[in-house]
Parts: sequence; structure tokens; C-alpha cells
Amino acid sequence: MISKKMVGLVKGSSVIRAMFEEGKKMAQMYGAENVFDFSLGNPNVPAPQAVNDNIVKIVQEENSVVLHGYMSNVGFEDVRDAIAKSLNKRFDLDLEAKNIVMTVGAAGGLNVIFKTLLDPNDEVITFAPFFGEYKNYVSNFDANLVVVNPNPPTFEPDYVDFEKKISEKTKAVLVNNPNNPTGIIYKKEWIEKIASILEKKQKEYGTSIYLISDEPYRELVYGGEEVPYLTKYYRNTIVGYSYSKSLSLPGERIGYLVIPTQIDDYEDVFAAAGVATRILGFVNAPSLQQKLIKECLDEKTNIEAYNKNRIRLYEGLQECGFECVKPEGAFYLFMKAPIEDDSEFVKVAKEYNLLLVPASSFGVKGYVRIAYCVSYDTIERSMTAFRKLAQRYGLIK
Amino acid sequence: MISKKMVGLVKGSSVIRAMFEEGKKMAQMYGAENVFDFSLGNPNVPAPQAVNDNIVKIVQEENSVVLHGYMSNVGFEDVRDAIAKSLNKRFDLDLEAKNIVMTVGAAGGLNVIFKTLLDPNDEVITFAPFFGEYKNYVSNFDANLVVVNPNPPTFEPDYVDFEKKISEKTKAVLVNNPNNPTGIIYKKEWIEKIASILEKKQKEYGTSIYLISDEPYRELVYGGEEVPYLTKYYRNTIVGYSYSKSLSLPGERIGYLVIPTQIDDYEDVFAAAGVATRILGFVNAPSLQQKLIKECLDEKTNIEAYNKNRIRLYEGLQECGFECVKPEGAFYLFMKAPIEDDSEFVKVAKEYNLLLVPASSFGVKGYVRIAYCVSYDTIERSMTAFRKLAQRYGLIK
Repeated sequence: MISKKMVGLVKGSSVIRAMFEEGKKMAQMYGAENVFDFSLGNPNVPAPQAVNDNIVKIVQEENSVVLHGYMSNVGFEDVRDAIAKSLNKRFDLDLEAKNIVMTVGAAGGLNVIFKTLLDPNDEVITFAPFFGEYKNYVSNFDANLVVVNPNPPTFEPDYVDFEKKISEKTKAVLVNNPNNPTGIIYKKEWIEKIASILEKKQKEYGTSIYLISDEPYRELVYGGEEVPYLTKYYRNTIVGYSYSKSLSLPGERIGYLVIPTQIDDYEDVFAAAGVATRILGFVNAPSLQQKLIKECLDEKTNIEAYNKNRIRLYEGLQECGFECVKPEGAFYLFMKAPIEDDSEFVKVAKEYNLLLVPASSFGVKGYVRIAYCVSYDTIERSMTAFRKLAQRYGLIK
Repeated sequence: MISKKMVGLVKGSSVIRAMFEEGKKMAQMYGAENVFDFSLGNPNVPAPQAVNDNIVKIVQEENSVVLHGYMSNVGFEDVRDAIAKSLNKRFDLDLEAKNIVMTVGAAGGLNVIFKTLLDPNDEVITFAPFFGEYKNYVSNFDANLVVVNPNPPTFEPDYVDFEKKISEKTKAVLVNNPNNPTGIIYKKEWIEKIASILEKKQKEYGTSIYLISDEPYRELVYGGEEVPYLTKYYRNTIVGYSYSKSLSLPGERIGYLVIPTQIDDYEDVFAAAGVATRILGFVNAPSLQQKLIKECLDEKTNIEAYNKNRIRLYEGLQECGFECVKPEGAFYLFMKAPIEDDSEFVKVAKEYNLLLVPASSFGVKGYVRIAYCVSYDTIERSMTAFRKLAQRYGLIK
């Protein structure tokens, strides 16, 4: 009696989430310390102390009716203004409050912008591998996700395939930078190539193609890599951001969209994003979290903890003979499975209490994603299990 | 370049929200004390002190990684368990954690259950007048809202029209109890009649018709009226709840769905609701607010403040010669416009700085909604304006 569309969705429901639930069960069975759960991108680094300190300060000082009350659907004006100013300072931009829509995390933001832009049968292009939920978000509005072929081992976009797949139906192109699941960063040169192809195609078809940059991992970069701010490279860019990872607040559902004045039909897009926020049932981003963000714009997560994990895991897996993409950002390591069937490999890994996510759910075969937002100790102790797994496949003796 | 559907939605966007924005502007122009903004259901009663006290306690005592982190998409198990137990105690029910899905307010909950149940062209029946957003929520899933004719002045459902409008396409019936915008309560006898018609029609068509009760105003009742708990009257009932009004937390976006084990296809509906929560972009209800609710289950809003407003406004408007529905719950008063065209009447009222909402946006003509969740002083001072308005229409001298 549930909707026909949901029948399929429930059956094929997120492998990642299923594993998260299974991990909790396994932890109960074998003891949490004996299960190496690398499935979910749930930060293990606590929120900066300033988060909890400011929550206390805000509830003690702010007018309760305002703090917990309705505001404009796009969010508190003072918060949006502060975010715009902070982005201007960091990236040399020219944003105002009228360019910011507060959202229920990045997932909420993407649904809002897709509701805003997409007609049925429109196409959204993304690059494999990609965060599996994108398919659902696009499908929510009866549009189609068109996937550009993966380009291992660097996973630089396949520009030829990208250009081939742009059509008159292409309403948006979605990039995730730094990338989940590969951990790579889309460099300035890559973005420039994407932008120039888009400019060309916009002219060819006389359409507007919006480039949507999903950036929950923007602050999680290692080794001084720079994540380009895409609005500077392509006029029709919209940015989705979330504090889930940068402030370790994934459960709180707080983020924003940047809708620059320079984009085609800015007025309509901004107005529609506000309406979409309301009618999709978000109404507005959680109010206390909005006010919190205003106080925490300069706070940073403990990036060194993730970096330590990253190095230990990457080096450890290489010693085991596994072929890995070197992670430059986010907290994911993308590893080649020693057999073609990544789901089978994930099953075998589970025998060693290693919970990995098969890359099939990201639109690529033959890889697994390892989320290293876990304690260093977990990584250290998981090495024995990884070594046994490598031995099983004859990668080491 | 925005989606075709959104073009219409932006144009016809919420009259209530437009008035809320206009009210803010008028307050700047004329001074807040000279504008009588009865447009939005934004509680003026502050959240109980226990809300802010518990927020402080929770952030100081709970593990930060758990508190602000991801949990199952349906919400924290301990919170859901506590809500189930509290409902069992209050209404003599038999619920468990597995019957509760935490949602981003009632608006989020309705979108989740509609995503769960509705196929394109399915029908959802509701009774006029109804909360205007229902139309958008149903339309989000390409289903149609079918509206039962209003039955003034009591607004008891028109059972004959209701029965006539149920078809094989009817997937759900949506009631709002206590009702926005009329302030009336659907009594036990009304619910029993609705239930018996639904039972009959389910048999006739061999379908499941879910009764969805949207109950954000459940705790706001006056004069000892009782709001029946609908799961006890009709097996296929699903309840949507929100703490927006009962704890004055509308900006925080926290509520839940009750999905009883007794409903048809319970397992599928519950599983799909979890998936819908995720893929619609909510992911989960805000985590700190979930934990807060667990500590505030027995907290109550200052109902006496609203009651005082209710009596003053109802009596004052009657003295002015306006015809009013006596409000039994929520914080809305439904008043007959002295002319047929309620939008025109609202325009005239604005000349007196009275911001009212035309009932056309609730699917009924010739009425206005007055949200009396404002200060008593505002109501007191608005009486002069209402009197002038009544004089203009010759209701009093």
C-alpha cells in the first residue's frame, strides 16, 4: 500500500545506512572494540568547544520567542549577512544576505535547489563515482541523473564523455568538492575545463546550465591543497554547504545555499528557493542552529585528527598491497577491491569485522569506500584485520 | 529558468507568509506598537523555562559526538521510546519506539508520510477550510487534494459530500485537529462518523484509506474540551505532531509521526517513512531538539495567556458586530467578513493596520483568520481599529 516508487527505494535503500544499522548490531554482538565500522561519514571528532559554549550563551541571552520562533523561510537576516561577509573575506567574493538561503544541511539544500530548478525529465549531470543519494534527490522531482563515466585512477573528470552527455535537457551539473567517495579535490584546472565546456554548451543550446557545487567537505583538506570557489570560474554557479563535517554537527541539520546575484534569473531562483524551503516541509533551517553558526564562523574542526588517520590508513593499506586513491580531502579513502565484484569483497571483509561500503552504490565498480572518521585506535587495530584480508587475496604473504 | 511548477507556486505563494513579511515592513514604517499583525501562527508565548534549562543541561552533560551526530533516520531510539510511553500514559495507547518517526516539525512529517504513501494521481481528501499548505504538500508528490465542501457556521464535516468524494483513488484523508483556521475541535462523534464512512468505503473498494491526523494544536484547547486520539477510532490512522506550538518551538522544526502497528502494511509504511525522511533531505530531525523533547514531555505552554486573548478578542469582535466562530482550540479566530470578497475586506482592514488572512487561502470564501498568538496588549489596542472597521461597514455606529 506504500507508493510504487517507494517500494523500489525501500528495497534498494542506502547500503551505507544499512551498514550503519548493521554495525550497531555487530558492536552489540562482538563488542564495539572488535568491530571496525568504516561505513558512515559520521564525524568522530567532537564539535569545537565553542559550539556547546555558544549554545549555552545563546539560550541564556537571546529573546526566547525570537530564538525559537519562525523567521523568513530563507533564514535569519543577521545570520545570512554574517555568512555572506565571512565568505567574502575568505574567498574574495561579493555576496550579501540576499544570496544566502539557510538550509536543513546540504541534503536539504540540494532538495531545495532541485525543487527550484527541475521540471520532469530534465537532466542533472554528475561524475562517477558520486554520492549515491544524488540519484534520489534528482528523482524526487522526476528528473534524471546522467552519470559521466569514471576515470580511474586519478578520477579527473572525463571531459569528452561529459561534453557528449550535455543536452538541451541538461538543467544542472552537480560536483562534489572535495569528493565523496574518492577523497580527491577538483582542482582549479579541472573546474576551468568544466566551465569552458558549459559555456560552450550554453551558447550552443541557448539554455542556462547551472553548476551546483556540493561542498560539505570544503574545510577538510590536507597538505595545503586549495579547493577553488566555483562561483569565480563559472557565472551560473550555485553552492551548497553544510556544517555537518566542518563543525561536526551532522545530526543538527544546518547548512546554506549560495545563490549569487550574477546567475541567470537570480530573482526567480532566490524567491523559488524560499518557497521550496517552505513547501518541501523544511519551513526553515533549525533556528537555534542558525544563530549558533553566526557565532562559530571562524571555528575549525580538529583536522589533524583526520589527517593522522588518513596517513596511517593510506600507508597501512599500501603495505598490505591494496591499491588506493590518495585522499586529498574529506575523510574517505577509495580503495580498489582485489576482485571485480566489490559487493562480494565487502562481504568477505565483514568476516574480519571490517565494514566497508561497496563502490557500486557510488556508480563505480571494483572499489570500496573507507570512511576514516573513526578513532585512531580503531584504525590502528583494524590493520590486523586488513592484513588478514590482504593475505586471503594473496596480496601479501 | 526555474521549474514550471515553481513559477505558479512563487506567484501564488503563501498569502500568510507574504503578510508576515509585509507586517515586518509595516512595523518598521509605523512602529511595531501601531501595527496589529494577526497573520502568522508564530507563538508569542515564550518556550517554558525548562526548554532553555534543559538545552544547557544537555550540551553540558551529553557526549557531544552522540548529541550532534547522525542517528537512525527515524530518530534516537531513547527519544522515540520516551514519546511512545508518554502517549501511552496520556491516551491509554499501546505504542512502542517502533511506532514513532521523529520529523522536522509537522510540515516535515506530512511530507514524509505523503512521500511514503502517494503515487501520482492518488487523491488525498481534506475538509474546507484547511491549512493552505496541504495543497502544496500533496502536489509535491503529484497527487491531488480533494476538498470536502465547508459547512458553516459550525464547520462540522459535510458527511454526505465527504462520502461522495471518496473514490478508488483515495489514498488518505487529512484532518487537522484542533483546526487551523477555524479553531474548532473535531469531536468524538464527528470522528466516529468519519471513521464509519471510511470503513464502509475501504470495504467497498477493497483499498486501504489512511486517516492522517495533523495535530500541532493538540495541547491548545480551552474550556476543558477533549481532543479525541484518532488511532482509537479508526485502525488505519497515522498521527502527525509538532512541538512548534505546544512548546513554542516553531523555528526549531521538531515533531514526530505515530505509525501504529495496527495499520495495513505497517512494516512497509514504517520502513518507507525512514527512507523518505532521508531522501527528502531531512536525513533526521534535529538531534539536539530530539534530546530536548525527551526531557520536556511533561512541559506545558502558558495556555492561559492564549485563553485570555481568545476571550477578549471573541467578545470584542462580537461587540463590534462581527460574526465569529467561537474558538475551542489552537490560537485562531475565524471571522465572517461583512462582504463576500474576503481579499477586499483584508485590504480595507490593512488601512487600519490590521493584518488578517483572507480565508480564500484556506479554501473558503467570505471569512478571515485572525491569529491571536500576540500580546494581550496588542489585542486590547487593536480593538479601536476593529471598531473603526466595523463602523466602516455599518455594523455599529
